[in-house]
Amino acid sequence: MAMPSDSVSIMEVGPRDGLQNESALVATDGKIGMVEALVDAGLKRIEITSFVNPRWIPPLADQAEVARGIRRLPGVDYAGLVPNVKGYENAKAAGMKEIAVVVSSSETHNRKNINASTSETMASCEEISARARKDSIRFRAYVSTAFGCPYEGPQDAARVASLATRFMAMGCYQVSLGDTIGVASPRQIREVLKAVNVTVGMDRIALHLHDTRGTALANALAGLDLGVRAFDSSVGGLGGCPYAPGASGNLATDDLVYMLNTMGMKTGIDVDKVAEVSRMMSRLLNRALPAKYPQAGGWKARSAS
Amino acid sequence: MAMPSDSVSIMEVGPRDGLQNESALVATDGKIGMVEALVDAGLKRIEITSFVNPRWIPPLADQAEVARGIRRLPGVDYAGLVPNVKGYENAKAAGMKEIAVVVSSSETHNRKNINASTSETMASCEEISARARKDSIRFRAYVSTAFGCPYEGPQDAARVASLATRFMAMGCYQVSLGDTIGVASPRQIREVLKAVNVTVGMDRIALHLHDTRGTALANALAGLDLGVRAFDSSVGGLGGCPYAPGASGNLATDDLVYMLNTMGMKTGIDVDKVAEVSRMMSRLLNRALPAKYPQAGGWKARSAS
Repeated sequence: MAMPSDSVSIMEVGPRDGLQNESALVATDGKIGMVEALVDAGLKRIEITSFVNPRWIPPLADQAEVARGIRRLPGVDYAGLVPNVKGYENAKAAGMKEIAVVVSSSETHNRKNINASTSETMASCEEISARARKDSIRFRAYVSTAFGCPYEGPQDAARVASLATRFMAMGCYQVSLGDTIGVASPRQIREVLKAVNVTVGMDRIALHLHDTRGTALANALAGLDLGVRAFDSSVGGLGGCPYAPGASGNLATDDLVYMLNTMGMKTGIDVDKVAEVSRMMSRLLNRALPAKYPQAGGWKARSAS
Repeated sequence: MAMPSDSVSIMEVGPRDGLQNESALVATDGKIGMVEALVDAGLKRIEITSFVNPRWIPPLADQAEVARGIRRLPGVDYAGLVPNVKGYENAKAAGMKEIAVVVSSSETHNRKNINASTSETMASCEEISARARKDSIRFRAYVSTAFGCPYEGPQDAARVASLATRFMAMGCYQVSLGDTIGVASPRQIREVLKAVNVTVGMDRIALHLHDTRGTALANALAGLDLGVRAFDSSVGGLGGCPYAPGASGNLATDDLVYMLNTMGMKTGIDVDKVAEVSRMMSRLLNRALPAKYPQAGGWKARSAS
């Protein structure tokens, strides 16, 4: 995981977090084309689908077809979300080499999202992690609603830190802290990161930010300033969580990459190619997407004539 | 100008910077209602119009009617942009007690925007400042394209600092550095602020940010972290500059206030009332506005039932 301090690693979650909430279904071929275009843009880590029960999230019912259909390139990590042991086995059967588990810091949100208590979910994550270690499958973990729950309100930073620490003990390579409903402020980002940093180094933390109230990129900057070098984002700002009232799009990969590249951080990502994927998804979904960069385009000084 | 370090002062520029670029003309009564509703929301500083030649910016041709029609409340600063001496005299005749002058750091942009060289504009600002001091009219100054010009590209931070210093010498109470075309990154914000800070204290600086590439609120945070306590923003994220290709909306007052209030900074502004004004302007202009907060609404933990 050692990286130069000016390198930032982005997990593209558009194909999963972005599309799971879309009423306009994107065909399997469209999803595969989306992933391959994102890889072509320089994304090295992509969460391609969720191995969730299709009855829960019908837009992702083609999870296995997507996983099998993508032409996998070396050096790229294709990840799948796994809500339970059955999902893990399905992911493994579909040839996934990386998975992600998820728990909410909020008991109520976890019940709504996973239909289990957080204790039950953490026990399930233990089981999944044991299997993943045996199967040599990389895994990461999400702590959702880490900055606020739509049902329970603000969350306890110490509880978030405790969950992150337990995930690290299971052997996951990274814990992603989710602002699931987009309520965090930079101050809260700093408070939670400082609590987490007591036991988990910032090189093991990712921020998964939603832009519900416009603060996602500012929150990313707050994390960056504290040493976070991994962010989850979604091409075009696609996304949301169907079980979180008020949730809207993820932080847009386009705008995040524009900011990071312009700051001199190394992402390895071509922002203009990302913007092309945004425009493709906007056409497929037949709606404008929230990312700003694709609307403005790059910046080159023009002739004054 | 002394303020507690946790207080932030916002200059609402929606009635001027926001509306100058709108093809759908807002009636004079609508503008007056907008300003009064913003004051009711807690805004204490509002740029209500520009005293520009109406042939240049037809949507602001009712500048004097707006200035005279607003019911002025004590403790609120109503400001008018003044591009030249004639504009100053018109502003004064309309009863303005605060004005703002403007120059671009870019020679080419200044020519396009003001139809004068920067030397000519600075000489004009000298003349305006002398009259304003004599007339006891407060004045501030904008340095536009301070982070990038659509014609000339990146700008020299030392030149921005020099212009800001000259404005301070003229007696202006604040210099607002404009990211007119929304290209700045937090890194560039920091570099320019550090250059300016050699001669002008951060308590005299405002940031005027556009969200063209999604970075405005992150840039505001970068400024906040360096001690800037004054920001220009526009209700709903209205705005743009008709003479800057690619420019789009200002930083949204709604999202800025949400972030600042949530960080525990004192703005004195009711974000939900600002969002109400956003929705009113969206109806008047018959289009969706970019601010996120008004779409999501406030955040209160809900019943899980």
